[in-house]
Amino acid sequence: MKIQHIIHENQLGLLFQQGSFGLEKESQRVTADGAIVTTPHPAVFGNRRYHPYIQTDFAESQLELITPPTKKLEDTFRWLSVIHEVVQRSLPEEEYIFPLSMPAGLPAEEQIRVAQLDNPEDVAYREYLVKIYGKNKQMVSGIHYNFQLSPDLITRLFRLQNEYQSAVDFQNDLYLKMAKNFLRYQWILLYLLAATPTVESAYFKDGSPLAKGQFVRSLRSSQYGYVNDPEINVSFDSVEKYVESLEHWVSTGKLIAEKEFYSNVRLRGAKKAREFLTTGIQYLEFRLFDLNPFEIYGISLKDAKFIHVFALFMIWMDHTADQEEVELGKARLAEVAFEHPLEKTAYAVEGELVLLELLSMLEQIGAEPELFEIVKEKLTQFTDPSKTVAGRLVRAIEQAGSDQQLGAQLAQQYKAQAFERFYALSAFDNMELSTQALLFDVIQKGIHTEILDENDQFLCLKYGDHIEYVKNGNMTSHDSYISPLIMENKVVTKKVLQKAGFNVPQSVEFTSLEKAVASYALFENRAVVIKPKSTNYGLGITIFQQGVQNREDFAKALEIAFREDKEVMVEDYLVGTEYRFFVLGDETLAVLLRVPANVVGDSVHSVAELVAMKNDHPLRGDGSRTPLKKIALGEIEQLQLKEQGLTIDSIPAKDQLVQLRANSNISTGGDSIDMTDEMHESYKQLAVGITKAMGAAVCGVDLIIPDLKQPATPNLTSWGVIEANFNPMMMMHIFPYAGKSRRLTQNVIKMLFPELE
Amino acid sequence: MKIQHIIHENQLGLLFQQGSFGLEKESQRVTADGAIVTTPHPAVFGNRRYHPYIQTDFAESQLELITPPTKKLEDTFRWLSVIHEVVQRSLPEEEYIFPLSMPAGLPAEEQIRVAQLDNPEDVAYREYLVKIYGKNKQMVSGIHYNFQLSPDLITRLFRLQNEYQSAVDFQNDLYLKMAKNFLRYQWILLYLLAATPTVESAYFKDGSPLAKGQFVRSLRSSQYGYVNDPEINVSFDSVEKYVESLEHWVSTGKLIAEKEFYSNVRLRGAKKAREFLTTGIQYLEFRLFDLNPFEIYGISLKDAKFIHVFALFMIWMDHTADQEEVELGKARLAEVAFEHPLEKTAYAVEGELVLLELLSMLEQIGAEPELFEIVKEKLTQFTDPSKTVAGRLVRAIEQAGSDQQLGAQLAQQYKAQAFERFYALSAFDNMELSTQALLFDVIQKGIHTEILDENDQFLCLKYGDHIEYVKNGNMTSHDSYISPLIMENKVVTKKVLQKAGFNVPQSVEFTSLEKAVASYALFENRAVVIKPKSTNYGLGITIFQQGVQNREDFAKALEIAFREDKEVMVEDYLVGTEYRFFVLGDETLAVLLRVPANVVGDSVHSVAELVAMKNDHPLRGDGSRTPLKKIALGEIEQLQLKEQGLTIDSIPAKDQLVQLRANSNISTGGDSIDMTDEMHESYKQLAVGITKAMGAAVCGVDLIIPDLKQPATPNLTSWGVIEANFNPMMMMHIFPYAGKSRRLTQNVIKMLFPELE
Repeated sequence: MKIQHIIHENQLGLLFQQGSFGLEKESQRVTADGAIVTTPHPAVFGNRRYHPYIQTDFAESQLELITPPTKKLEDTFRWLSVIHEVVQRSLPEEEYIFPLSMPAGLPAEEQIRVAQLDNPEDVAYREYLVKIYGKNKQMVSGIHYNFQLSPDLITRLFRLQNEYQSAVDFQNDLYLKMAKNFLRYQWILLYLLAATPTVESAYFKDGSPLAKGQFVRSLRSSQYGYVNDPEINVSFDSVEKYVESLEHWVSTGKLIAEKEFYSNVRLRGAKKAREFLTTGIQYLEFRLFDLNPFEIYGISLKDAKFIHVFALFMIWMDHTADQEEVELGKARLAEVAFEHPLEKTAYAVEGELVLLELLSMLEQIGAEPELFEIVKEKLTQFTDPSKTVAGRLVRAIEQAGSDQQLGAQLAQQYKAQAFERFYALSAFDNMELSTQALLFDVIQKGIHTEILDENDQFLCLKYGDHIEYVKNGNMTSHDSYISPLIMENKVVTKKVLQKAGFNVPQSVEFTSLEKAVASYALFENRAVVIKPKSTNYGLGITIFQQGVQNREDFAKALEIAFREDKEVMVEDYLVGTEYRFFVLGDETLAVLLRVPANVVGDSVHSVAELVAMKNDHPLRGDGSRTPLKKIALGEIEQLQLKEQGLTIDSIPAKDQLVQLRANSNISTGGDSIDMTDEMHESYKQLAVGITKAMGAAVCGVDLIIPDLKQPATPNLTSWGVIEANFNPMMMMHIFPYAGKSRRLTQNVIKMLFPELE
Repeated sequence: MKIQHIIHENQLGLLFQQGSFGLEKESQRVTADGAIVTTPHPAVFGNRRYHPYIQTDFAESQLELITPPTKKLEDTFRWLSVIHEVVQRSLPEEEYIFPLSMPAGLPAEEQIRVAQLDNPEDVAYREYLVKIYGKNKQMVSGIHYNFQLSPDLITRLFRLQNEYQSAVDFQNDLYLKMAKNFLRYQWILLYLLAATPTVESAYFKDGSPLAKGQFVRSLRSSQYGYVNDPEINVSFDSVEKYVESLEHWVSTGKLIAEKEFYSNVRLRGAKKAREFLTTGIQYLEFRLFDLNPFEIYGISLKDAKFIHVFALFMIWMDHTADQEEVELGKARLAEVAFEHPLEKTAYAVEGELVLLELLSMLEQIGAEPELFEIVKEKLTQFTDPSKTVAGRLVRAIEQAGSDQQLGAQLAQQYKAQAFERFYALSAFDNMELSTQALLFDVIQKGIHTEILDENDQFLCLKYGDHIEYVKNGNMTSHDSYISPLIMENKVVTKKVLQKAGFNVPQSVEFTSLEKAVASYALFENRAVVIKPKSTNYGLGITIFQQGVQNREDFAKALEIAFREDKEVMVEDYLVGTEYRFFVLGDETLAVLLRVPANVVGDSVHSVAELVAMKNDHPLRGDGSRTPLKKIALGEIEQLQLKEQGLTIDSIPAKDQLVQLRANSNISTGGDSIDMTDEMHESYKQLAVGITKAMGAAVCGVDLIIPDLKQPATPNLTSWGVIEANFNPMMMMHIFPYAGKSRRLTQNVIKMLFPELE
């Protein structure tokens, strides 16, 4: 199987580097001191029967986090990050994720509960494992790395070779080559990445085999880890032999099921091994990896990339390990696993040789410079074991006092990190906050999520066979298409609402400045707002709150509006406060008051200082990556201060309200205040009615109300509707500056998936 | 009631000129020779039970066209135009609309069928009229002019006066003043606008009262017209007296119902006159007007504006006519009606005086210059009767030979005019052709139509209580909001269709030119199209039909695409022909082939001449106001010719196909060819499935198919889907260059109003 040659001849280097990736990461939930908890798997994660991302492995305390298959390792790590942030923020306050593979603070055996899955067989299997291996060994955690070559590559390679007649045979032997060479050279990865140098002695039934203060590279990959009886010998010589030997051990009862065979490489893509004979091996699962406690997610992207090219090299090399060489590889693994982490390995020469050849492969397949750097860095670790993960770890354990103490410290640090920007998902921070909030909730609940277009905030959600598409967090199939079209057009919106009997301020549209000015008599003494038909940023708007008093002011305001649009509206101005009602279906779920940017004096600090203090609020930032925007102190703000007889250096009196803006937009530093519970029910009902008149399922309704405590009456002095929005920025309600947070994304999920428990 | 003073003092001139307007225009359907038809009211106009625009008056042959109330007379005339164009184009080929008020070619009495309305009472009422007045008088047609003052004006006037305590009384007396003064001075309008100088003698039971060759101004307004028994005397002194006297005549049986009272002014806005006492008169109906045969719609906009200001003047003047003066006015009307049209009227001095005062009113209310011109023009007609409508008419009748001959000529001319741009509605020509087609169909069928926003193609349709909003002719509540969002995004569209199992060309997206070029190996030898992610105009697209042959061409094409967008797609290129499938619900209603601009040689004409000949096609024009676009002969076309070894002066051989464009867009002169009946059913089903996968009710699906006669097979060589459009330009299918027209707008109506017969 001369893969190397074909790839080179046919310039397939790029295709060779393509593939699919997926990680499964186990870890224990622990208390602040690093001891394993005895609490059940948190109910907030929905049901493990279907959860695609958050599962439990052996024990109820043992989280298993699963990334969906992706084409790029960068994306795998984004998912790993998202799932971690969801889990960290959803755990009980006093619980943490333990960053080390070997358990610490093990509860008494009877207190370790196997995972309480719905399926009785799954529970029975775990009970069986307890009998065979004991509970403690099952509590060891690690990372499984799934890798699939590009199917397109395999097809091309098959077409370009002339050794095989059958495509399935070719594919099987290709993956088997990778598996066998991996087993032969896996000790290299162990040397570089192992991270289980010690464990508390309670872990061992018959006392610790390690001398006091003794460290090894990997307990987990040693005979003290979770491994099969050495008698269980499964052949990788051919798929046929693999199937036969595996079925043999199951039929003799030495294995309860095929899945009890714990090789460091598993052939994947079928429910039963026998299927490989007809459908082919689809991908491999590498199960060798200890959690890297120095990485917040247990593994670094660089190491994942290293593992990828290492796996590629396993088929690149001309030689294919035979069964004897596989056994040699396993023996070498066991040996290296028990070496001291700070000592050079016995096989450094072989390791260096392999990595040098790997570098030459990278050269030939036109790999990115980063990959060379990664491999070269690993190469240095053969001369300097202190740079390996295990090497660094023993020093860190010594410094912390114990593995448990180190784990506890890091667990706390990582959890705190996950809360730093609690309103966002770091890996999807380029998306809108509302969509990030929805993503958080669907991943938490276990709804299968695909990001169809990141820049366009387009998600595909799936529960069972039920598919829903969502854009911007709340645009769904539940709205009729005509609704946003109506809402997009203020004139049409108004006509529709008026027909339906809602209080709409009257307005007149003009397309010519001259005609508009000539209509002065129609508006004299009326409180009106003059605005361009289609600006959304408050530009060109003039308000005559006391009524239009003279033709000159009127003409001036029209002129300003016409600068922004060809069409201008002169509209009744309503006296009162504007509230945003968020309606979903038959219910107003949230009411928000937006207050113009302001600070309140304390007789001590200057305006500039008060602004700086207010801007320290965790929700304030640039306004796109944060729910609220920092207050600026630009020209407009300084003019506003001047009107109040203030400068940025003035020291306002205690409780003096200092306005920094006239407009209440959040995007200019305004405050958002939840008023849902304060608002009289009658207005909430009106907002629902308005939403229905728009034909919408989700709608943001802006009402002007003079007194939110008084019930609504039918005329314009009691309330009026200003606008209806089909993309109503749920984020404002989820992360208000003051008042209660309203997790609207959960309501969107309920609307989309009413069948979800 | 000193209206004039209040308006002046308070600068209410503009508000005074605001109001609502509506016209009802009767006319007879006739054959080509002007004789009244005996055919039933065309079934294509739906049911008269609810039709808001197209009704019958007395007889089955007598159309009554009704404009909806509008705020501007310009809009009234747009509706009048639209309704006329709908009627003219819907009439049987051999039928016309007679442009004269007096009937011609009257059928024998027994052949005149009264209107066959659903409601038996309506039919019974007409049968009663036949007994009292005979059928012929009922066949006279005219125009009724409905006018309402701005309610805002009335409220303001009421507030500013101190004579009345009750707003209803004030409003009633205001309208009564207008009514009484109108009756006093109506003869002026008659003099200027009358147009019934003669009628065939068959019209009269007892022979014509006119001497041979005698013409009068208005037979219709004389005792020979359709008027009540002179005994029926209804007082306009006060609403109370009006109600009492009217009820008196009904109770004594002299009138069968209040509606049998045929005053030239009717008080309107209530089912029974008595209601006016509590709710007030809402508007007036002026019934004086003969059809003006020189106007395509029976009345000119200028005359309508004249009637408006004339009516305003009736309340502007300080004096209010008493009952005696009303009677004087009626007598003067009868007298002027019987004057010879070419003779000066006996009351010219009064007429001139009134119009001079009217001019002074216009001055004071700041009227537009146009209105002064109109009134001044009328003023000259008192010295020159030949310029009145009746004056012009007698000359035209003499020239044509008879009133019937003149009517027949004009009827044919007006019908031909309505067909000149048969694909458009002249009055709404600023709207898209698809929306115009929908407007045509809904007006024809009698669905109540409101144009919410013209520029935005936004309609509100109503049948009974059932309201539907439509944008762009096919965007409705039947589509879910997420569908257009999916279709707007090519990447998302593709992912959704792929998930649903449709043949989608594979594609890869790039955001960097460098990375894209580096991926050359992935595309080598593959037939691909390279295009920017979101351009719709064909810009930046390169097609490698024979596969990508070398890295340089590949890089160049990418560079061109990246000039148009930050994201570029490299996509499988399908071999075959692109067809557009229009799907509505469960059915593919139309299939269209778009062919690049071309001409076919005849061995005689040059390319330039062939293009000119092809451009003469009635559907070709600028492409926005016409269904097809004229072929240009610009740089691109000449380059295309050059590639074929031709110039614009070449004379192509007979049947030689000359390509003028490479792209098939209609907007660059392409031909549209209906292929609905030619397309194999299997592809139509696929298009329906694709539409359903998009969650859409209406969708334009672009498929590439190598052979439209062969049934579809499941792979990409048989067919592939290119795009799905949520705004699929129905117009292309309704007005194809070749093949059958598919009236899709009617299917949209059926979808929206399935309850409609």
